[in-house]
Parts: sequence; structure tokens; C-alpha cells
Amino acid sequence: MIGCRFGLSKEEIFEEAIRLHRLFKGKIEVVPKVPIRSMKDFSIWYTPGVAGPARKIADDLDEVFELTSRWNTVAVISDGTRVLGLGDIGPYAAYPVMEGKALLFKYLGGVDAIPIVLATKDLEELIRVIKVLEPSFGGINLEDIESPKCFFLLERLRKIMDIPVWHDDQQGTALVVLAALINAFKLVGKDIKSSRIVLVGLGAANYSVLRYLEAYGVNTGNIVVVERPDIGILHRGHPLLERFRNTHPHWYEAALKTNSENITGGIREALKDADAVIAASRPGPGIIKPEWIKEMNDYPIVFALANPVPEILPEEALKAGAKIVATGRSDYPNQVNNSLGFPAVFRGALQVRAKKITDEMCIAAAEALAKYVEETGLSENRILPKMTEVEAYVREAIAVAEMAINQGIARRKISREIIEEEIREIIERAHKLPEMLGLR
Amino acid sequence: MIGCRFGLSKEEIFEEAIRLHRLFKGKIEVVPKVPIRSMKDFSIWYTPGVAGPARKIADDLDEVFELTSRWNTVAVISDGTRVLGLGDIGPYAAYPVMEGKALLFKYLGGVDAIPIVLATKDLEELIRVIKVLEPSFGGINLEDIESPKCFFLLERLRKIMDIPVWHDDQQGTALVVLAALINAFKLVGKDIKSSRIVLVGLGAANYSVLRYLEAYGVNTGNIVVVERPDIGILHRGHPLLERFRNTHPHWYEAALKTNSENITGGIREALKDADAVIAASRPGPGIIKPEWIKEMNDYPIVFALANPVPEILPEEALKAGAKIVATGRSDYPNQVNNSLGFPAVFRGALQVRAKKITDEMCIAAAEALAKYVEETGLSENRILPKMTEVEAYVREAIAVAEMAINQGIARRKISREIIEEEIREIIERAHKLPEMLGLR
Repeated sequence: MIGCRFGLSKEEIFEEAIRLHRLFKGKIEVVPKVPIRSMKDFSIWYTPGVAGPARKIADDLDEVFELTSRWNTVAVISDGTRVLGLGDIGPYAAYPVMEGKALLFKYLGGVDAIPIVLATKDLEELIRVIKVLEPSFGGINLEDIESPKCFFLLERLRKIMDIPVWHDDQQGTALVVLAALINAFKLVGKDIKSSRIVLVGLGAANYSVLRYLEAYGVNTGNIVVVERPDIGILHRGHPLLERFRNTHPHWYEAALKTNSENITGGIREALKDADAVIAASRPGPGIIKPEWIKEMNDYPIVFALANPVPEILPEEALKAGAKIVATGRSDYPNQVNNSLGFPAVFRGALQVRAKKITDEMCIAAAEALAKYVEETGLSENRILPKMTEVEAYVREAIAVAEMAINQGIARRKISREIIEEEIREIIERAHKLPEMLGLR
Repeated sequence: MIGCRFGLSKEEIFEEAIRLHRLFKGKIEVVPKVPIRSMKDFSIWYTPGVAGPARKIADDLDEVFELTSRWNTVAVISDGTRVLGLGDIGPYAAYPVMEGKALLFKYLGGVDAIPIVLATKDLEELIRVIKVLEPSFGGINLEDIESPKCFFLLERLRKIMDIPVWHDDQQGTALVVLAALINAFKLVGKDIKSSRIVLVGLGAANYSVLRYLEAYGVNTGNIVVVERPDIGILHRGHPLLERFRNTHPHWYEAALKTNSENITGGIREALKDADAVIAASRPGPGIIKPEWIKEMNDYPIVFALANPVPEILPEEALKAGAKIVATGRSDYPNQVNNSLGFPAVFRGALQVRAKKITDEMCIAAAEALAKYVEETGLSENRILPKMTEVEAYVREAIAVAEMAINQGIARRKISREIIEEEIREIIERAHKLPEMLGLR
């Protein structure tokens, strides 16, 4: 059916995708998950019987997680302001992207996800609309929302909502970066906690990377953050520091807590003697020069995550002495792929009805992912698993669920054995759905 | 699997429904409708390929109906203020009801419906939130929202939205009532357009019945509306007329255009010499007395639609001389069941990408439903089809689609043959889903 394979140009892939989207008219559908053998069954699933579950929930609101699909339903929400590399293309154009995400949610994590694209860009209205939607969903996945609005939106919603709120471009990417970084440091035999790590670009992803590294125990004084050329390295003495406090509070925060040596300059100065660089900036070649890699510490770790064009191409980085290289691309080894994160994180969080997704849950997920790779064959070209490795998702989801229970934010307290059994069954069934539905 | 069958008491049915809802943890799920044979297929369904459809939609917004599932996706929206006979039980308790409706939408109409329960009761906020949700859905089904708010909500949303907005408790019930009434008048050999028709209760359902009857060509001067006991029959000289203008504008409107003889009094006075009564008031026995039926014109038609207790029991109405009786209950003949309406109306509207659902489309649906019954065996105990009669839905959906095309509000112009083929295929496949998914 799908004629598209590697060897096609980017534009050819786009054309093929349009053709196939038009043929199938969307990627997901809603189906029954209960028996319907005759119309009489609707007297249970609808009137008059459904008044039973409705009254039960009216008496005890927590019952909504037991008697409806809410427990497993996640809204994939976007305002269409920063879609893929396409920018502010609006909610309608964002729809196929959110629907694709929903497809991944189900296939990889067994999560029922619904594309919700909103006709407003206003921060306060987004907060209010999403809050009003809370009874409909067991979790919220924010997606492709412009920065810095996405920071405020995530932070505010996490405070006022009683279900997990997640911005995949922040937490999701950062989780997979952390897993990859843990394994990269294992391979080069250095202690990540006392290493010098450079972040190039402090957008949605790297802002969360910074937070996770701190929570993981990395000395933030050893981290150096470089922003775009007119800003340079963030530090306490930055001439625009006071202005950042209002316009870019996350830059302000980073300037205060990173870079204890007050290094100044640009990417080159930041990279000198660094052990690792995580670049997540605007796509474009040549943002990191090979000669700067040569000035890094021994066994440099280089994550060049801009898509589709990394800040430095892997072959150039390796030639310049990089020991381990990761990108966002599927045609190079070590793809830092969000799809390794969100399906399992939500699977774990939903399974125990977690009220939040905490940084600790994400770090537990990253550690589980890293450990799974270590146990199944860690190498310079395999610091992360592939999307096909179902066991990696199961382990990651279990780690998330256990951390939620340990932190006291799980509504459901169940044993590790039952969690594991339930999670494995749901994920394995999800992989079989296309075949069950005759989709070939 | 389902142990519940007739013979169980109401409370036993509720308990059985709670047990089964708990067992299945919800009634619907989201599944792929495209092939996934390997992870490489995600390069078409998600990044990088999905940028193709996204750009295409950004260039031409109408393409969202061709390249995503939006065309077939309907939000089943409630604020939980008037759920079944339970009243204002809130959005969480409304969830299982909306989910049951979504199940019916798919099974009977092939429509992908999503339960959306909202944590606000404020009219203006409901309007704004639903408007902001517009890009996510191909249609809106409002449900179980208190009156008179539901009138204002429906009217305002229909004006500002470019997709069908429907309040099932208004339009849906009225459509099925009209179909039943057309057939009842055929059976008694009277012309509906010049008959005297009494509406008992002018709530969500009967307000639309009145509008449809008018659009169908019934002389509204011959219609008499009776409200609750302290209000009585509506007429031009009603002492509270001016107050209604603000508090109950639909009563005001009805007082002006119905009852040209200015009959006063209560239900008894209204029924005298009437040809038909459509009672859709609060549940409770004895609201219509048998002796009042005796004072109606020859061959009285009695629709007693309150649930679960009709305004007069069918056996009593028949004994008092009623020729044709309909109720809302499945355990009597002639059930006026909303499920005969909304799945096919949306199927037809979505199939041609109608921008609205007009009264004319609903009347066409009612006529198609009535005609189908006439062709397949009309009798005093069969003025409506059963939910199992797939052909009735197909005919009804086609009639809706054709009227949308004729009215110039269909985005998609296709031939009757293709509409029929598509609609039949979708509805027949929907009935097979439980078996395909191994649900027994």
C-alpha cells in the first residue's frame, strides 16, 4: 500500500503523504470496546442503564476513572503556532500532525488520544479553555505551541489541573535526551554529575533538559547555556540580564544558576573543554564548527538535535573527534526520538491514575530507558532503543508508575506485578490492532 | 456476557450497568484506521511526511476535511446540567452518558464521536469554549443541557459556527416525533396540515416540534400549546405574556403564533376536539386523564413521551379511545427513540460536508423515515422503524445529504449514487466492528 520508502526526496515524501492521507481520510477512528450483540445491550451502555454509572459518579467523582474511558483518554492539544518546522500555520493545518501523534499514542502506548486544535492563541484563553475541558480527559499533551508561551502555559496548567499535563516539546524531548546522555557518559567513562555540559539554545526542549539535569544531580554551575548569536552565553553579568527577567524568564533563571565560572562569548567559547554539548536550536547547518569540537575535552559527546538539518552533521562531528553523536534524524544512529518517551510516560501515569507527571517520573523513565539499553547491548551507535523494542516501553512505563506511587500522587495503588501485567497486555494489544482491523 | 435482560427491576439494571461499566472501563476506544506495517510507515503518518498534508491545509483550509478525520468527527458536548432524568449532576457524572451516545453514533451512523464534558455552566463561556473547539470537529452534538439555556446556546452557536451544531434533545427528538406523526396521520386518514395538534410542555423537544410542524406546512393557528399548571395554555391574552418576552422567549413566540382561537385553560381544555396530542413534559403518571382523551376528535393520536413514566399509560389511552399511541419507552410499540435520528442525520450531513443542519434537512429525514415505514409495513403498532432496520438509516442519511446539496450548504457535491454507496458502506461496516474487534 505505502509506496513511500527511503530514496524519495523530501518533496516526494510530502506528496506521497498527501496522497495517502487523502486516500484514508484521516488516521484514527473511534470504535466500541464493549460487546454489542443486539440493540438490547444499549439498555446497559445507554439509557436506561447508564443512569446507574452516572449516579455512582455523582456520588463519588473518582468513580469516573473506573466507569468510563476517561482514565485512558488524552487530549493532544495545539494552537498551531509552532508546528514542526513550519511555524505558525494555524489549528487546521496542525490537525494532521496532532492526529499522527494520537496514532503513535495508541500504537506505542495503548493510550486513546484525541486531536484537539484550538482557534485561539491567547495564553489566558488557552488556560481557561483547557481547564474547562478537564472533566473530558485523563491527561493533557500540549504540542507545537510557540515559545515562550508554552512555558507559561505548561506551568500554569500543571498548577490548576488535577490530571497530568505534559508539553512534549519540553518534557518529552528532554526525557529522551537525558536517557541518551546517561548512556553516553557511561560509554566514555565519565561521571555526568561533575562534567561540563553545554546547552546550545534554551528553547522548549533544553529548558527541560536543564531542569532534569539539575534534578538528576548534575552540578548546574558546570553547565553553560548559549543562546542565539546576539545573546551569546548566559551568565550573571550579562548586559541584558534585567531585561530577561520579564521577556525571557527562563533565560534569566538559567543565567543565575548555570556557568559558575561566568564564561562569556559564543558557542566556541562555551565548548572549550566541555564534555558534552546538547544543541537544540533552529535548524541549519554549520551552527557548530568541527574545529570547536576539537577544542572540547577528551571523548566529546555531541547531540545535534535540530531537525531536519543538525547543527553539525554526524560525519563531520565524528571526523573532528566526537566520540558519541546523536541527532533527531532516523537515518543516523542514536536518534533522539520523542516517540521513545510520551507513549510510555502516559501509559505509566494513566495506569496508576497519577495526578501529575513530575520531573522525578520523567527521570525515572529516562533511567529505565538507559538501563534497558545497557542490558541489551550498549554501544556508541546504540545509546537509545528503537521504536520497535516493545520491552523498552514496558520497562519505562513501569518505572513511571512506580515513581508516581512512591511520590504519593497515584490514585490507584497496585502492586508492581499487576502494573507490569496490565501495561504489557495493553501495549502488546495495541501493536496488534492494525492486523485485527484488517489494515495492511 | 451481559446478564441484564428484561425482568430485572430498574435498580437491578442500574447495578448491572455499573458492574459492566467497571469491567470494561469505558465503552469506546481510539484505533488506527491506516496500515502500520512497520515503524517506517510513521514517516508518512507522522514526521517528516505529515508536513505535506499540514502545508496543504495551510494553503487551503477546506483540505482539512479531505486529509484528516475531522470530516467524520463529532463532539458530544454536555455541561451536565440536565442529564437523563437526573438533573444537574455535573460534567463528570455526565461522562458515561456522553460516552454511550458516542457508542450509538458509531454503531448506528459510522460517526466518530468524542465525549466532551465541560466544567462550566455559564452560557457565554460555553459559547466561547465550543467556538474555540471548532477546528477539532466536523460537527457538534449538544446533549443534556438545561433549558432555557440550551435554546440560546444552540441558536448562538448555529450562527457563529461553520459546521453543523445540533442539540439532540431539541432537534433529534422533534425529528422522530415528526416522522411518527406523519405516519399516524396517514393511518387515521386526516390531513396533518389542517388538523388541531396540542403540545403539552414547550421544553427542548416540543419547541423544535413546533418549528418543524410550521416548516412542514401545518397551520400554527390550529396548534395549541399547554405549559405547566401555573401557566396553562399559551395565547395572545395570557396575563404573563410580557414577562415571557424576557424570561421564556420561546413561550412568548408560541403564544403569538399558535392558538388563533385564543383557547384558555389547561390540558383538558386544549385537548377538546384535538386530533393529536404530543406530550413531552416532566415524567409523572396521570398528567393526561383518560376522560380528556374521550373529549378529543375521532381517532385521537396520543404521544405521551415523558420518560420513564408517560403522561398517560398506553393501555389507558387506548382504552379511552386513542387510535394510535406512542411513548419514549422500548417496552411499548411505537417508541419515539432519538437513536432513530441523530446517527443518520449526522451521517448524511458529514457525508456531504454540510455547513449546517437546517430544519429542512431534519424534515427531509423525518419524511424519509416515515416513507420507509410506509413501504415496509405501516400499522397502528408500527409507525416508526426499529433500531435494527439498517435500511431506514441509510434512506434517512441520503435524504439529509440530498437536501443539504439542494440548499447549497454542502461543501462536497456528489451524485446520489455515490452518496448512497458511501453511506451504506460506512453504516454496514460500523455494525460489523464489534465482531471485527472480537467483542462478544
